[in-house]
Amino acid sequence: MTGCQRRRTSVSRAFLLPRLLCLMCFAVISLAENTEMVNVVTERKAEESHRQDSANLLIFIMLLTLTILTIWLFKHRRFRFLHETGLAMIYGLFVGIILRFGVHLPQDLNDVTLTCAMNSSPTTVLVNVSGRFYEYSLKGEVRDSKGHDVPNAEMLRKVTFDPEVFFNILLPPIIFHAGYSLKRRHFFRNLGSILSYAFVGTLTSCFVTGLVMYGCVVFMKVIGQLGGDFFFTDCLFFGAIVSATDPVTVLAIFNELKVDVDLYALMFGESVLNDAVAIILSSSIVAYQPEGDNRHTFDGSALLKSLGVFLGVFSGSFAMGAATGVMTALVTKFTKLRDFPLLETALFFLMSWSTFLLAEACSFTGVVAVLFCGITQAHYTYNNLSAESKSRSKQLFELLDFLAENFIFSYMGLTLFSFQHHVFNPLFIIGAFLAIFLGRAANIYPLSFLLNLGRKNKIASNFQHVMMFSGLRGAMTFALSIRDTATYARQMMFSTTLLIVFFTVWVCGGGTTPMLSLMQIRVGVDTDQDNLVSSTHVTAPDGMTQRNTKHESAWPFRLWYTFDHNYLKPFLTHSGPPLTSTLPACCGPIARCLTSSQAYANAGQLHDEDTELILNDGSSLMYSDMTVSTDAHGMPTSQAGLYSLAGRSDDPLDRELVFGGTRLVLPTDEPPDPLTSFPPPPPSPALSDPLRH
Amino acid sequence: MTGCQRRRTSVSRAFLLPRLLCLMCFAVISLAENTEMVNVVTERKAEESHRQDSANLLIFIMLLTLTILTIWLFKHRRFRFLHETGLAMIYGLFVGIILRFGVHLPQDLNDVTLTCAMNSSPTTVLVNVSGRFYEYSLKGEVRDSKGHDVPNAEMLRKVTFDPEVFFNILLPPIIFHAGYSLKRRHFFRNLGSILSYAFVGTLTSCFVTGLVMYGCVVFMKVIGQLGGDFFFTDCLFFGAIVSATDPVTVLAIFNELKVDVDLYALMFGESVLNDAVAIILSSSIVAYQPEGDNRHTFDGSALLKSLGVFLGVFSGSFAMGAATGVMTALVTKFTKLRDFPLLETALFFLMSWSTFLLAEACSFTGVVAVLFCGITQAHYTYNNLSAESKSRSKQLFELLDFLAENFIFSYMGLTLFSFQHHVFNPLFIIGAFLAIFLGRAANIYPLSFLLNLGRKNKIASNFQHVMMFSGLRGAMTFALSIRDTATYARQMMFSTTLLIVFFTVWVCGGGTTPMLSLMQIRVGVDTDQDNLVSSTHVTAPDGMTQRNTKHESAWPFRLWYTFDHNYLKPFLTHSGPPLTSTLPACCGPIARCLTSSQAYANAGQLHDEDTELILNDGSSLMYSDMTVSTDAHGMPTSQAGLYSLAGRSDDPLDRELVFGGTRLVLPTDEPPDPLTSFPPPPPSPALSDPLRH
Repeated sequence: MTGCQRRRTSVSRAFLLPRLLCLMCFAVISLAENTEMVNVVTERKAEESHRQDSANLLIFIMLLTLTILTIWLFKHRRFRFLHETGLAMIYGLFVGIILRFGVHLPQDLNDVTLTCAMNSSPTTVLVNVSGRFYEYSLKGEVRDSKGHDVPNAEMLRKVTFDPEVFFNILLPPIIFHAGYSLKRRHFFRNLGSILSYAFVGTLTSCFVTGLVMYGCVVFMKVIGQLGGDFFFTDCLFFGAIVSATDPVTVLAIFNELKVDVDLYALMFGESVLNDAVAIILSSSIVAYQPEGDNRHTFDGSALLKSLGVFLGVFSGSFAMGAATGVMTALVTKFTKLRDFPLLETALFFLMSWSTFLLAEACSFTGVVAVLFCGITQAHYTYNNLSAESKSRSKQLFELLDFLAENFIFSYMGLTLFSFQHHVFNPLFIIGAFLAIFLGRAANIYPLSFLLNLGRKNKIASNFQHVMMFSGLRGAMTFALSIRDTATYARQMMFSTTLLIVFFTVWVCGGGTTPMLSLMQIRVGVDTDQDNLVSSTHVTAPDGMTQRNTKHESAWPFRLWYTFDHNYLKPFLTHSGPPLTSTLPACCGPIARCLTSSQAYANAGQLHDEDTELILNDGSSLMYSDMTVSTDAHGMPTSQAGLYSLAGRSDDPLDRELVFGGTRLVLPTDEPPDPLTSFPPPPPSPALSDPLRH
Repeated sequence: MTGCQRRRTSVSRAFLLPRLLCLMCFAVISLAENTEMVNVVTERKAEESHRQDSANLLIFIMLLTLTILTIWLFKHRRFRFLHETGLAMIYGLFVGIILRFGVHLPQDLNDVTLTCAMNSSPTTVLVNVSGRFYEYSLKGEVRDSKGHDVPNAEMLRKVTFDPEVFFNILLPPIIFHAGYSLKRRHFFRNLGSILSYAFVGTLTSCFVTGLVMYGCVVFMKVIGQLGGDFFFTDCLFFGAIVSATDPVTVLAIFNELKVDVDLYALMFGESVLNDAVAIILSSSIVAYQPEGDNRHTFDGSALLKSLGVFLGVFSGSFAMGAATGVMTALVTKFTKLRDFPLLETALFFLMSWSTFLLAEACSFTGVVAVLFCGITQAHYTYNNLSAESKSRSKQLFELLDFLAENFIFSYMGLTLFSFQHHVFNPLFIIGAFLAIFLGRAANIYPLSFLLNLGRKNKIASNFQHVMMFSGLRGAMTFALSIRDTATYARQMMFSTTLLIVFFTVWVCGGGTTPMLSLMQIRVGVDTDQDNLVSSTHVTAPDGMTQRNTKHESAWPFRLWYTFDHNYLKPFLTHSGPPLTSTLPACCGPIARCLTSSQAYANAGQLHDEDTELILNDGSSLMYSDMTVSTDAHGMPTSQAGLYSLAGRSDDPLDRELVFGGTRLVLPTDEPPDPLTSFPPPPPSPALSDPLRH
């Protein structure tokens, strides 16, 4: 009956921070009067609970520590068959097994629950115990509170997180970091394709998966294998959550192997954005609730409402993320905060976090807002930061991302044994694997075909196969599926999702390297060369440099690039051409007011550097819009574009991504000497991306 | 009756993370059957509550953002009369005033609480609402739940934190950072005095303050000004919490002005350690509970038990902090984790956090354990880290410290208006100010006199006056006093403590700079010169360099230095003399096994560098144990010691503190060239401490 409702089950009892925060720890050991006595007992319970919580959290910390050490060992020995996230899951599995079968704790007598009858469920209840009032707060509804047939139910319940921890604590840093570290040039060059895969592709995948699953469920019902309700909306919901591909695992491997930049951009862009699409899509499906008694039939108005929710929440979250990003850019531009890197980093961190809170406070989706905030911050604010803040903020978000990721993946492993309502249905599982395969195929192949009609730089079929194969499911799928495990349908989904994540991370993740060589994807791509070949600069008569991309020749993108480069960048950052030269003459005073003195200096500097670059790589550089085929496999990987320049002042993040590997962090505020900090590309030996580990 | 009990009041309702985590946010808009309906209502309530929480947290984030911008403005304009913590408090005050008097929210109907009678107070209650079970968890006892006479009580209650947030989330990073950034050489040179001030001094201060307060309270009772019980233990408790001086505000000023290093070390060491002493002292006083009916009389056995608690908790916390520090040192020494700075930083962070959890899980004091962990990490582990991890870890902890500090101080400002049980008693307040003055005086002057009997490098009277004046009360005092506000006595204490913090931060903090010039304390001390003058090196016949300190000539300290330098450092880090040369010959194989190859290399390098240093500053250097007076005010500030060398491999943190200011962060793993990264001291222009902002 309640397929589209989200409710809290006994699994939803947080043990981590909430209780750590909520409970007190003090050592009162006394024998006293009666009321005192009750008090002391309560306090001791609270203390005991706090201790237990600390111990449980300690298990996770130890687990993470172990994972880190093993990751080091793997990296040290250059094992590539298992990524760190896979490792974290294995450790989680072990701890889960130990907790479930190894430890036998006596039942805690203090935790016996009392039942009292009331007429409604307020958020706060006062309990009168012999004249003293104790406050209790609503934690949610409990299903099946009696009769856990699992041993150690108490223990397992205690190491179980509130699913909202994922959405409010662990996912935001991961998603923000993903947005913040998008390889922006390549990302924008393939923006049209990425958006198509992320929106059209994810929707297709969701519906195909949903339909296959519905067929499977109907078949199961016919042969009597289904133990509860499973509606079409449930199937669609399942389709939505398994359509979110994970940006973590494969891309770490891609990055390590220096896979073709366009493939990287397509995969990364798609998997980052489809997380956002999947999360909003799933909540729209939940919002689809036809009125009246017959609640699981088709209803046009409910569908429209769902669509409205989807568009509203998406655009709202997008707007909020972009708005805080722009605000941070303005604050960092118009104050001299860059003289104090600590203050600057703190501001940057707080503003990014406030995006999340703002979106949540306005009933939008915080995680999605944070993603777009990350992209905006990288595109604009990053240019305004001091060198030290740049490295500080990157390192901070990298660390948060690393910790959150490994935490989620080791928790996944643990959940396989600690979750007490697993429903493993072989037919459903087989159906699900088939469905995600078909769903992914329906996303990649037809869309690639259509996109290739419009793209000059075609998405080759080996690229398509890799994209098909490497669509891992990870943190987002897990977080979405654990969010509600109240009904039979949701429990079966959760168990199946867990298996899908395990399979894709271990098998597809581990198989990425062989797959790449099988598909003859070029690896070890020197990002520099690729850039230099694909970039050329037309020096405008007034000494200003104009860029553009020709990968995507659709006019909306070109329009956006021009607008962004001529107006937004100069307005929001210290870089780009001065507004005085791009705005019409009538806006002169405003333009002068908004253009920082640095922008004038940069405009000249930019020009010089461009020349320098051109001189350095004169042989392979063209000044026209010609296509240059540099790919060993005969693919036209790079084209002479006007946009994609590793320009110093225009795109420092890009530049660092391109010329990364060594970094100079100087606490002095002067910009480093362009000649020393920006070495000519040819002698660059090891080009590792500093944003990825 | 419950003066020594800690209980939770209505103020103890967390709004931040717990609810953020505990509550769900989803947008289910439907009209459905009856049970569904109840469900939806519950969910809407939860969603509404989550939104409210996000909005409240947003207020704090905005407050912090504003504070950061104002701090920048102050730093930019070089205003020194108000430190950032003072600023944060002022903003907090404003927001408190606005929330209290400006905003008028309608009473939330959903929050009406129900009362039901039970016989005990379990940690979990199941409430049966027309057949559905809802889980409620114990939040604590509520006093005075009806009849708030304050307008906006609901609103104010919502912006109120669970006091345990301070102990479990905000204090640990502050205290860890304090430990991690102790200027270790000067700290160890003055260790005896610092320990005396921190232990003997804090105890003295606690008892003097307690006695004065008891006198005040008795007087108040006589003239009928006391509205409730106030026992001697309460007075002592008050003495303990106001004896914790704050390491933040004054020391930031000291650091900025480059005040005399010995004064800095004394103040910093004392204020960091006395936080630890105060927290354990206060919990020991709470543990003092004579048996029987007459619970507030003297009882020898209870006193002994309290003493036992004090010693046990202190030594336990100390041992735990040191143990995890040592373990981290060993892990970072014997793995090659330094090749991957991200992993290294993550491990460092997790191990440091696990100290806190471990101590809490074992019923010790996490905050104290974290302090000693920080000191150990700085002393040993820091030497093993890669250059990038060093800067990463410092920047990370610096940021956490900065955010936590400003959060606490702005919350303090807010609390003055949002706390609903203030008891401002003029007599008590006057008594308290007198008491803390007398308590501080009883700590500093007699102890300094006694210490000067043993010190060669006397603590001058102007130093004593500054220490007396600059004993600000800050975060720890606040956190300890807000932890329990259940009784009349505790409420009065809390209100008074708040005023004390405001007064000391604004008046004493703001007056530090004038005070320093009034007392003719030398500022702008070039730490380098000071070091070079005070350090000399005896090159042992085997080429090994021995150090020692003569500031504290007591044998336990010398013994410790020798042991630490000869055995602990070589065992735990890559630096120091190789164990093969310090251990007896019979331990040869073990020594070889434990000594890293770097240590041999460093031993030679060390020697070279020492020579270089000596050559660079030959004029002012002596090779004997003579006293060198370099102070303009005629004080014997520095003495030729054998220990305090800014040796490169021995004490990189020290070195960086000494030669700090510019930092090179190279992602390459090779240690920087000693000649370039360790410039000869004379031309060092601006010596700012990179660990402080």
